[in-house]
Amino acid sequence: MVTKTIDLRSDTVTKPNEVMRAAMANAEVDDDVLSFDPTAFRLEAEMARITGKEAALFVPSGTMGNLISVMIHCEVRGSEVILGDNCHIHIFENGGISTIGGVHPRPVKNNKDGTMDIDLIEAAIRNPNFEICYPKTRLICLENTHANTGGKCLSVEYIDEVGVLAKKHGLKLHIDGARIFHASVALGVPVNRLVQAADSVSVCLSKGLGAPVGSVIVGSREFIARARILRKTLGGGMRQVGILCAAALVAVQENVEKLADDHKKAKALAEGLNNIKGLKVDIASVQTNILYFDISEDANITAHKLINQLEEHGVLMMADSSSRIRVVLHYQISAADVQYTLACIEQAVNGTPFKNGH
Amino acid sequence: MVTKTIDLRSDTVTKPNEVMRAAMANAEVDDDVLSFDPTAFRLEAEMARITGKEAALFVPSGTMGNLISVMIHCEVRGSEVILGDNCHIHIFENGGISTIGGVHPRPVKNNKDGTMDIDLIEAAIRNPNFEICYPKTRLICLENTHANTGGKCLSVEYIDEVGVLAKKHGLKLHIDGARIFHASVALGVPVNRLVQAADSVSVCLSKGLGAPVGSVIVGSREFIARARILRKTLGGGMRQVGILCAAALVAVQENVEKLADDHKKAKALAEGLNNIKGLKVDIASVQTNILYFDISEDANITAHKLINQLEEHGVLMMADSSSRIRVVLHYQISAADVQYTLACIEQAVNGTPFKNGH
Amino acid sequence: MVTKTIDLRSDTVTKPNEVMRAAMANAEVDDDVLSFDPTAFRLEAEMARITGKEAALFVPSGTMGNLISVMIHCEVRGSEVILGDNCHIHIFENGGISTIGGVHPRPVKNNKDGTMDIDLIEAAIRNPNFEICYPKTRLICLENTHANTGGKCLSVEYIDEVGVLAKKHGLKLHIDGARIFHASVALGVPVNRLVQAADSVSVCLSKGLGAPVGSVIVGSREFIARARILRKTLGGGMRQVGILCAAALVAVQENVEKLADDHKKAKALAEGLNNIKGLKVDIASVQTNILYFDISEDANITAHKLINQLEEHGVLMMADSSSRIRVVLHYQISAADVQYTLACIEQAVNGTPFKNGH
Amino acid sequence: MVTKTIDLRSDTVTKPNEVMRAAMANAEVDDDVLSFDPTAFRLEAEMARITGKEAALFVPSGTMGNLISVMIHCEVRGSEVILGDNCHIHIFENGGISTIGGVHPRPVKNNKDGTMDIDLIEAAIRNPNFEICYPKTRLICLENTHANTGGKCLSVEYIDEVGVLAKKHGLKLHIDGARIFHASVALGVPVNRLVQAADSVSVCLSKGLGAPVGSVIVGSREFIARARILRKTLGGGMRQVGILCAAALVAVQENVEKLADDHKKAKALAEGLNNIKGLKVDIASVQTNILYFDISEDANITAHKLINQLEEHGVLMMADSSSRIRVVLHYQISAADVQYTLACIEQAVNGTPFKNGH
Repeated sequence: MVTKTIDLRSDTVTKPNEVMRAAMANAEVDDDVLSFDPTAFRLEAEMARITGKEAALFVPSGTMGNLISVMIHCEVRGSEVILGDNCHIHIFENGGISTIGGVHPRPVKNNKDGTMDIDLIEAAIRNPNFEICYPKTRLICLENTHANTGGKCLSVEYIDEVGVLAKKHGLKLHIDGARIFHASVALGVPVNRLVQAADSVSVCLSKGLGAPVGSVIVGSREFIARARILRKTLGGGMRQVGILCAAALVAVQENVEKLADDHKKAKALAEGLNNIKGLKVDIASVQTNILYFDISEDANITAHKLINQLEEHGVLMMADSSSRIRVVLHYQISAADVQYTLACIEQAVNGTPFKNGH
Repeated sequence: MVTKTIDLRSDTVTKPNEVMRAAMANAEVDDDVLSFDPTAFRLEAEMARITGKEAALFVPSGTMGNLISVMIHCEVRGSEVILGDNCHIHIFENGGISTIGGVHPRPVKNNKDGTMDIDLIEAAIRNPNFEICYPKTRLICLENTHANTGGKCLSVEYIDEVGVLAKKHGLKLHIDGARIFHASVALGVPVNRLVQAADSVSVCLSKGLGAPVGSVIVGSREFIARARILRKTLGGGMRQVGILCAAALVAVQENVEKLADDHKKAKALAEGLNNIKGLKVDIASVQTNILYFDISEDANITAHKLINQLEEHGVLMMADSSSRIRVVLHYQISAADVQYTLACIEQAVNGTPFKNGH
Repeated sequence: MVTKTIDLRSDTVTKPNEVMRAAMANAEVDDDVLSFDPTAFRLEAEMARITGKEAALFVPSGTMGNLISVMIHCEVRGSEVILGDNCHIHIFENGGISTIGGVHPRPVKNNKDGTMDIDLIEAAIRNPNFEICYPKTRLICLENTHANTGGKCLSVEYIDEVGVLAKKHGLKLHIDGARIFHASVALGVPVNRLVQAADSVSVCLSKGLGAPVGSVIVGSREFIARARILRKTLGGGMRQVGILCAAALVAVQENVEKLADDHKKAKALAEGLNNIKGLKVDIASVQTNILYFDISEDANITAHKLINQLEEHGVLMMADSSSRIRVVLHYQISAADVQYTLACIEQAVNGTPFKNGH
Repeated sequence: MVTKTIDLRSDTVTKPNEVMRAAMANAEVDDDVLSFDPTAFRLEAEMARITGKEAALFVPSGTMGNLISVMIHCEVRGSEVILGDNCHIHIFENGGISTIGGVHPRPVKNNKDGTMDIDLIEAAIRNPNFEICYPKTRLICLENTHANTGGKCLSVEYIDEVGVLAKKHGLKLHIDGARIFHASVALGVPVNRLVQAADSVSVCLSKGLGAPVGSVIVGSREFIARARILRKTLGGGMRQVGILCAAALVAVQENVEKLADDHKKAKALAEGLNNIKGLKVDIASVQTNILYFDISEDANITAHKLINQLEEHGVLMMADSSSRIRVVLHYQISAADVQYTLACIEQAVNGTPFKNGH
C-alpha cells in the first residue's frame, strides 16, 4: 500500500509547509494594485537586496516574469531578442514573446552546458546599417541554471563576458533565473555577483524554493516601474497579494540553504541509477537538482512503462522521450525517498525483489 | 486619535477575514499549471454551477479575465469588439485588448444606466459585404453592474435582447460581471439567469465578495479549455493556487448574502449626504454599492481638500473630479461606520462640531 | 446605347491620362528598396516642398500611409490614439492600427463638420498619473477633408488649435490628408500652411489628383527614416517604383488646379438634384467634391433601384443607405456629364422623358 | 570612361524594357481595390495557371507576399511557423511575421543546399498534448531557390516529402518562391509540378523576371480571398495597379525563357573567376543565377576594395563579408558583360592590364 507520494516530476510540485501556511494566515496585506501591500513590498525589497538590483516586482509566474522582461526591453516595435534555441522562453512559454509581445526571436544554438558560443551570439546581432531589412536586436537572454540541458550552471565569467558583449552593442541582458539560487549555491557565487551583468533577472519562488506561487523580476527602478504597468496590462496585478508574498518570504529565508542538500541527493540518485543495469546517467552533468537518465535498448522496459510502474509505488516522474526520464529533486524529498526510489526502479527494470519498507 | 480606517475607496480593499485565513492555511493544494490543484477545481466547479455555465477558470485579476475572454472570442486576427465607450475594459484596462490582443474596439455610447442603445449596437456591427475595408465584428461586451455609471444594473430583459441581437449576427456576448453578484442581488434575479444569454462572463471575487485575490471566467467547456492555454501564455497560470481559491470559496459561500446590506448602507449614506448642505447625490441612481456625490460650488471645499480632511479621521475616499467623489461600500463597513463617515463629512464641509465617539 | 461611363462612385476611379502614361513609359527608374530610384526622389522632394515638411515617402496606398504614421508615432507598446469616431482610419481601414499595429484607439465624437470638440479631445487625453490602468495617449488624428461627413474642410484655425493642444500635452498630430488639396483649394489656404501644426500628413495621389496608384506621407526627416523601414516591414517597399511616381508627379503638377472646377461641378450637381422632386441635398454642406443626396419617402424609388437604373445609362454611383446616395466628382467628369447625370436621375425618379444627347 | 553600368548587385535592379514600357503605357486599368482592374485579373489568372493553383493575388513586394501568406495560415493567435534558420523570411524581412503578425518562428537549421533535414522538421513540430506550454505549429516554410545558400534548388522529391510530412501533421506548406522560375528551369520541372505540395507560393516578378514592381501569391480560392482582405489591411491594395501588372505580364511571357541563359552566364562567370589567381568559387554549387566567390588571404585585396575598384569600371557588386562577394546574373547582363567583368576583376586582383574595349 502506498502511504506517501514521492513527487519527482518537478520542483514546482512542493506543498507549502506549516511555516508558510502560518505566514499566509497572519500576513499583513493591503491592495497591491493600488501599491499598498506591505508584505509585497517586504518581499520585493528583500529580493532586490539579494540580487543586488534597485527594485523588484512580484509576478504570478516565471512565464509572466520573462514575458514582461522581454517586452519591456523590447517595447519599441520591430525588436529582436537573441536567446538559446533550447531555452525555456523559446521552448516552453507558448511563444508568448511573439504571439503576445510581437518580439522576433533569433535563436542561437545552445551547447550542452547551456551556454551559447560568444561568437555565435555576436554573429546574430543585427548590423544597424541594414535596418531596412533587419529587425533591431535589443536584448540577449540567458538561462541559469539551464533547465533543458539538465540544470547546468552558467559561470559568472561566462555571464560577465556576455554582459560585455551586450554593452558593446548597446543591448540589454536578461537572465531567466528561475533556478538562479541553485546556480549560486552550486557555483559558490552569491546571487548578486552572479547576475551583476544583467539588466533584469526573473527568479522563481515556486520551483526549488518551495513557495506556493510566484516569481520576482528585478532590475533598475525605471525598469520595474514600467514592468509594474505591463503587469497590470497583462492582468498580473493582484489585490491582497501579500498572502502569497508572505509564503514566498519564508521560502527565501528558509529554503535557500536546503538547496545544497537537493544537489547532493540528485548526485546520490544519479550514482544509484548508474549502478542499475540497463540505466545510464552522465554523472558529471548533474550539477544541481535536475537529472536525466537513459534506458538502454536491451533493458526490457520503456520510459512510459517504467513511469507507470513507479506510480503504483507512489513515485512520480516525467518522461522526456521513450527512453529518457527527467527527475527533479526538491526539499520535500528525503535521502530515504531517494533510496526508496532507487529500489523501486531496480525492481521495475530488473525484477530484483525488494522489501517495501517505505 | 484614529483607531480604525474606514476604507471607502473601493471594494477591492477588503482584508481577508479569519475564516478566509484559516481556509488558506488549511487548503489542500497541488500544481495547478499541471491541472492538479483540487481546491482550484472546487472553486471553478462552484462558480460554473452558480453562473450556469459548463466550466470556469480562476485568473489572477478581472483585467486578465476580460483580456482572455476578449482574446479567445477574437482569436482570429482582424476582429472587432463592440463595447461601451465608458466601460471598464475600454477605460481602465490599459487598452490591453488592442496593445496585447490586437483586437480593434468599436465603442458605442454608454447611457447613464450603463446600457448601449440596441439600435446603436446593431448599427455598429460591420457589414460582412464590406470586409475588404472593415474589421470583422466578433463580440459584444456588456458590463454588469456598470461601474463608471455608479454601479447601475443591466436588467435581464436588456441582456437577453442583446443576446438575441448577437445570435442574429453570429456574434459572441461577453459580460464583464466584476460585480454581477451585486446586480443579481439588487435585481432579485439569480446569477445564472442574469447571464444566460452570455457566452462568457468574468466575475470578480476580490471586489465586493472580499476574497484577497482573483477573478473567475465562465463559459463553455471548449472556451475554458482555450482560456486555460491563454492564461498560461499571459503568465497567469499559478502553481499551488488553491491557497487563493480556498479564500475565494469562503467569499462566495459567506459574502454574497451580505451584499444586500451593502446596498442598504449605500442608500443610507446617499441619503445622509443629500441632507448635508452643499452636497448632492442622485439617490435614485444608487442601485448597488457605489455612489458618487457632488460638492456644490458654494460649498467652501474642493473634493481633494475634503478627502484630505477625512483621511485625518481615518476615512478614505477617491476623488472623481475636483467637485465629485466616489464612494464604494463593502462588507467591512458597518452601519456605524456610515454614520461616523457622515459626521466627519458634515464637520469638514460645514464646520459642524461632532463628538468623535467612533 | 451607352457610349461612355460616367463614374461617380469615387475619385479613386480615374484612369491615367495620356500625359501620365507617357511619363510612366519614359520614367527614369532604379531600385527604390535600395533607395536609388530618382523619380521617387523627385516626387518625394516635391511633396515635401508643397507640404512644408522636411521629407516625404511614397507608399502604395492611403491606408498604408495612415497605418505607418500611426504606428511610428505609437511605436512604443501601450499607446493610444485619439481620433474621430466617424473618421476613415476608424471606420474604413480594417482596424489595422489595432489588429496590425497594436495601438488602442480612443474615438471622440465627430461633429457634422468633421471636427471633434476641443474640450472632448482634451478630456480624452489620459492622465499620466493613472498610467497603472490607462494606455498612454501619444497621438491625435484629424482628417481633412473629412470624407464621411461629405468632404468638409477643417479650417486652419481649428487645426492650429488642435496643434496647440497636442503640444501642451506632448502629443503628436497626424492629419489624414487624403484630400488635403481639396481642403486647400476650397479654403484658399496653401497646403503647407494648412498642415503647419501637424507632425505628419498622409496625402493621397490617386483620389482627386488622379494618379493611378499611391499616397505620400510627409514629416520630419527622422520620422520619414523610420517610416521607410516600417514600409519595408509591411511589404510596401517597391523596386522600380519610379514608374508610379512619374504619373503621380504629373498628377500633382497638372491636376491640383482642376480641383476648383470639381468643387463647382459638385455644387452644380447638388443644386440640380435639389431641384428634382423627391430628392434633397444640403447645399451648404457641399464644400468640396463629395456630396450626399437623400431620396424622400414619397419618391417611388430606393437608392439601390435608382443606382441600377442609372447604370443602364452609364452613370455609376454608390449607395450609402437605402435612401441615400454618395457622389464624388473628379477631373474626368465634365460639366456636360453633370447635366446628363441630372437628366438621367430626373427620368429615373420622376419618369420625365429626356433626350439622350450624351 | 565608363559608358555602361553592369549591375550585378541583384536581379532586382533590372530596368523595365521597351516592351514593358509600352505595355504600361497602354494598359487597360480600373480600380483594383474595388476589384475591377482587368489587367490585374489577367496577370493573376495567368499566374494561377502557371503555378497550378486556384487563384492568385498581386502584391507590392515579395516581403508582403510572404508576410500575408504566413499571417493567413497562422491567423489564429498562438501560432508557430517552422522555417529555415538561414531563410529570407527569418533573416531579411524585418522579423515582420512576429513584429507585425504575432507569429512565433521556430527556425530549423538550413543545410548548405537550402534544405532542412526532414527529421529535424518533424522534431520541431509541437506535440499538441503539451499545448499548455507550446505554441501551435501551423505552417512549414520552404524557400526555392534558396537565396542565402547561393540560389540552390530544392528538388521536387524533397518538397513532396515535406508536403507529406505537413499533411500528416495537419500543417500548411508555404513556399517562398521568389525565384521559383529559376528552380523550375534549372531542374527541368514545370512550376506547377514543383509547387504541387504547397498550399501557397509567393513568386517574385521583379527579381529574375525583370518586372519593375511586384510579386504574386497563389493558393486556393479561399486562401486568396482572405489574402485580399489582409493585403488591404496592410495597405497593399492599389488602385489602377494594372499599370504594373501589364509590365509583369510581359516579364512572365518573355523572360522565363531567358533564365537558362542567366544560369549559363553564372556558370561562365564562376569558371572565369576560378581561373583568376587568388579567387575561388565552388563551381558545383552554382545552380542558378547567384554565385559567391571568395578572395584568398594571400590575394592583396579585400572585398570592399575590389568592389570600389570595379565600380570605377561600371561594374557593381555587393560584399557578403570582407573576403566574400555575391554576384547575381539577370537578363540585362550579356555574355560580353561577363567577359568584361572578368577582365576588370583580373586587373583589380592581379594588376594584369587589359584593354577596355567594352
